[in-house]
Amino acid sequence: MSERYSVSVFCPSHITGFFVPEITGRGKGALGAGINLSSGVIIRAERNERGLYLNGKSVEIPPVNSVLNSFNVEARIEVESSVPPGCGFGVSGACALGTAVAVNKLFNAGLSLDELVEIAHLSEIRNRTGLGDVSAQKTGGLAVRKALKPSGVAITEKFLFDDAVDVVVFGEISTEKIISDDDMVRGIQKSGREKLRKFLKNPSLNNFFKLSREFSIETGLADERIIDVIEAVEARGGMASMAMLGRAVFAINGRDVLEEYGEVISSRIDPCGVRLI
Amino acid sequence: MSERYSVSVFCPSHITGFFVPEITGRGKGALGAGINLSSGVIIRAERNERGLYLNGKSVEIPPVNSVLNSFNVEARIEVESSVPPGCGFGVSGACALGTAVAVNKLFNAGLSLDELVEIAHLSEIRNRTGLGDVSAQKTGGLAVRKALKPSGVAITEKFLFDDAVDVVVFGEISTEKIISDDDMVRGIQKSGREKLRKFLKNPSLNNFFKLSREFSIETGLADERIIDVIEAVEARGGMASMAMLGRAVFAINGRDVLEEYGEVISSRIDPCGVRLI
Repeated sequence: MSERYSVSVFCPSHITGFFVPEITGRGKGALGAGINLSSGVIIRAERNERGLYLNGKSVEIPPVNSVLNSFNVEARIEVESSVPPGCGFGVSGACALGTAVAVNKLFNAGLSLDELVEIAHLSEIRNRTGLGDVSAQKTGGLAVRKALKPSGVAITEKFLFDDAVDVVVFGEISTEKIISDDDMVRGIQKSGREKLRKFLKNPSLNNFFKLSREFSIETGLADERIIDVIEAVEARGGMASMAMLGRAVFAINGRDVLEEYGEVISSRIDPCGVRLI
Repeated sequence: MSERYSVSVFCPSHITGFFVPEITGRGKGALGAGINLSSGVIIRAERNERGLYLNGKSVEIPPVNSVLNSFNVEARIEVESSVPPGCGFGVSGACALGTAVAVNKLFNAGLSLDELVEIAHLSEIRNRTGLGDVSAQKTGGLAVRKALKPSGVAITEKFLFDDAVDVVVFGEISTEKIISDDDMVRGIQKSGREKLRKFLKNPSLNNFFKLSREFSIETGLADERIIDVIEAVEARGGMASMAMLGRAVFAINGRDVLEEYGEVISSRIDPCGVRLI
């Protein structure tokens, strides 16, 4: 119980398969479903210092600054990430939630995990960096975001899977750009609501991939290259879809195929969610 | 996604510090607060076999049979437990929840974690083996059970701690015997409600130990030997209280003292709750 000078936290990355953005009301967020991965970020928070570093380099991560402001504290935050930002892994959310958990511990703020999730979620919303990852990164597993609380944080239902998941990344997609296009948003909402309903009727990993794949194509979010890779994985007996929102394909039983397209990030489904380490 | 012939699951043990039994309405359970520990049970479920084994010996664990009946399946269940049953570690709950998670996976039943928690909780209630552990073992960490759902499963709030916890065990207490004594139950409810309210106002680990210790004495659940050990830990700068419900003392910064009284079980607070391994 002695005072600590540094705290380390792990937060899983999170890949959304399909989602329903809710961005016009007071509590902004997103319904949907996604999987938490054992590849993620490690956050180290240190007292009596300042600065924000990602894999050793000084950077700006606006939601992390927003979290620090919410606590009204200063700290040095070092992020080690094994996944790239901007590519559908929920890195900004992981950094925000990891920082909230670390700073809460470092300064003995005594907040519950739900309260920390809310701080991190609102920091994502304020900076338009993400809508739903933080709610899922709380629990780990396959997390279904079924409804929004007034804050915009999702009420989740967790399904336990332990499968190996491989990802190949082609590039970034700006969440902000997508959610600024009203027609695109309406199409995403319509398709996302249908997939959510269908998933909850049959909540298997196979069905998660099937519905995610349909969503990525119906919404126009998947480009030709993404569709090619998904089909190549399926042709060899695997399951794949597009990471929302990034130019990236995630797959089960697809590692050999993905390796033909680029460097593969291999993980398992993380069972736990954000935690002190 | 191929069919499996065995599944392994870890479930943390759970020590309750204070609680409010709710045993007269339709949804039976308990409010309260406790900590999940990295010492726990490993459940291995195997298809096409039968039998129930604890650390290699054939045993009866009624809530495990109730879980199997709920799924209407047969399986061989092997439990390896690093903590003793009947001593306040929530072993029956861990076995019930671990079995539910394992069997759900083994037979691809597609239930969510919340649904599995409900099956395990009702199996505990049916067999009068526990009231609240399963609700806490879902999330890990320090879990506060704030309210009951209609099923009797608790709505929990999780607080992340990673401290080392040591336990010394003197013997068993029958949950059933305690909750059959109406006067005792009323005293426990009154004290437990007060501690729950006070904890949520100041949710620190120090306060958890302080309130748990007060609860154990006010309710008459702690006997002289238990009180002696708690005071000995405190005299040397640690924090301790009684595991509900077992003749056992758990402590932070109390290992040296506990070792003077018996064999010590050492753990950390488990951050995760039940999971596939």
